[in-house]
Amino acid sequence: MNDIARRFVLASRPVGEPKTSDLQLEEFAVPSPGAGEVLLRTLFLSLDPYMRGRMSDAKSYAAPVPVGGVMEGGTVSEIIASNNPKFAVGDIVLGRTGWQTHSLSDGANLRKIDPSLAPVSTALGVLGMPGMTAYAGLLEVGKPKAGETLVVAAASGAVGSVVGQIAKIKGLHVVGIAGGQDKCRYVKDELGFDECIDHRAANLPERLEAACPKGIDVYFENVAGPVLDAVLPLLNTFARVPICGTIAHYNDTAPPAGPDKLPAVWRMILNKRLTVRGLLVTDFSALHDDFLRDMSGWLKEGRIKYREDIVEGFENAPRALIGLLRGENFGKLLIRVAECSR
Amino acid sequence: MNDIARRFVLASRPVGEPKTSDLQLEEFAVPSPGAGEVLLRTLFLSLDPYMRGRMSDAKSYAAPVPVGGVMEGGTVSEIIASNNPKFAVGDIVLGRTGWQTHSLSDGANLRKIDPSLAPVSTALGVLGMPGMTAYAGLLEVGKPKAGETLVVAAASGAVGSVVGQIAKIKGLHVVGIAGGQDKCRYVKDELGFDECIDHRAANLPERLEAACPKGIDVYFENVAGPVLDAVLPLLNTFARVPICGTIAHYNDTAPPAGPDKLPAVWRMILNKRLTVRGLLVTDFSALHDDFLRDMSGWLKEGRIKYREDIVEGFENAPRALIGLLRGENFGKLLIRVAECSR
Repeated sequence: MNDIARRFVLASRPVGEPKTSDLQLEEFAVPSPGAGEVLLRTLFLSLDPYMRGRMSDAKSYAAPVPVGGVMEGGTVSEIIASNNPKFAVGDIVLGRTGWQTHSLSDGANLRKIDPSLAPVSTALGVLGMPGMTAYAGLLEVGKPKAGETLVVAAASGAVGSVVGQIAKIKGLHVVGIAGGQDKCRYVKDELGFDECIDHRAANLPERLEAACPKGIDVYFENVAGPVLDAVLPLLNTFARVPICGTIAHYNDTAPPAGPDKLPAVWRMILNKRLTVRGLLVTDFSALHDDFLRDMSGWLKEGRIKYREDIVEGFENAPRALIGLLRGENFGKLLIRVAECSR
Repeated sequence: MNDIARRFVLASRPVGEPKTSDLQLEEFAVPSPGAGEVLLRTLFLSLDPYMRGRMSDAKSYAAPVPVGGVMEGGTVSEIIASNNPKFAVGDIVLGRTGWQTHSLSDGANLRKIDPSLAPVSTALGVLGMPGMTAYAGLLEVGKPKAGETLVVAAASGAVGSVVGQIAKIKGLHVVGIAGGQDKCRYVKDELGFDECIDHRAANLPERLEAACPKGIDVYFENVAGPVLDAVLPLLNTFARVPICGTIAHYNDTAPPAGPDKLPAVWRMILNKRLTVRGLLVTDFSALHDDFLRDMSGWLKEGRIKYREDIVEGFENAPRALIGLLRGENFGKLLIRVAECSR
């Protein structure tokens, strides 16, 4: 056990794209667990787009990280000392212990992971929050029907990749959008989407229209921006638009220049009788058992594939988060903070 | 029976606010019914905001009225000649016979009205399309729950007045928005809304906030524009926004100037997990029997009140439609085309 632990605290609220200096690396003494507590050593830290929101003090569904506070984040950790009878040294747990190498917990918000079922990192990805977001958002809000057409952006990412693959299992025509030819090839060839369109190439609207000859019935929204602009005219009557993210705008410092598109979109929602609905994964906890059953089954059957983009070294987390917001990652982005001791 | 009938045809597609010259009055010979047909004399022509959409060739849920074609519209008519055994001379019927004093029909799209139940004009208002829009939109899309807060604009109008009164029956705190003190007094004192705010007075956002101390759970959208701007910050988590109209923008000739509000609204839909859903009354025809049963009961019990704004004279229809789009009417706007002969 090291005596020195490390953590990233929010040094300043970013203006626009975060800078590495907005997050400050601090050392602290590895703490000792009190009565009923466990000491955790972080193995994997999950990096996710929502983190940009927690760095801002704009009104949102969750309180922001205070300046000077440890950055929030989901983690997979190993118990390295335990005064809690429910946890033994060596147990691997899922938690929200944040951007730090070590932490204490009373165990209340930890969930044990069975390492024999799948690599433990998947508890942060396909079997974790992003996978559950895709599952609940698609099935409960998107209400997909066989033969319909689904479009999802960030299609090689942690959420988009699962959305598209579940939609294929449900019998839809699935069109992904991703940044760059490598990602598009992966989405089509490995994940089995019907089409994948590179949003960096020209004429996105025309290419999307060609890929959706029967229009779009479900647009799983995780990006907004130019992709949304291309999708809107193609939406069919009674289409559903689950909104789980708008990453294209997370670094905006002000509303984009006009014209104001809201009135036309509002009228389109009326004319096409669209359903546009926001979702947070935490609203669907009642579905968690169904999710784990279905998703682990699909993984075993090879019907759902996943890809991880693992960055080595805790100190690289700020740069990796900036890259995530730029779309530079390829697959679920994780920081490997430490190797498991077993 | 007059030998000369009159009709309004669409002379030109309006640019911005319609001009009376966009609609041209024509005379034509009263037609004679063929085999199986009836001849109708129009008693009431309904004027409704959707008509502005039919005058434009922008993509919508329904085909536009062709230039030179008779303007569409719902009517209450009297059968004055019949070659159809299902209809007798003197029958009063609801139809979509358009802006004309006389018309022929094979009877397929006519529905007989029982004049003993309610004034026949209500088949175009509280017991007709506007009432059904309010009923279905509020109950099926708005999903109101007792104790919640509902906001509706155009609160003295054909739809808004019914939305708010049904919401009161369902136990909600109901706040209307209307144009001018007379309308607001009527909405509060006669219709029984908890509050009504004059959107022509200053500080709409502040006054709306004061009237909604627990935020807004259902915003029944029929106007958009500045009212929507004032409503958005007050929406609660899981609020519902049925969209049945956006009249503030019907005369727009181009998207409003920026900034572009769409990204912020999209993100709010996510953060607050809003449901925004467009509705057309024709999507809910399965509810029509429930609607007639409930609404006629509420009318008899005095729990739903209505007000009609009846303009005398067919020739005044274009000017009245322009006034409707300006909010000049006070209650359900109807043109009295002819007196019933009985």
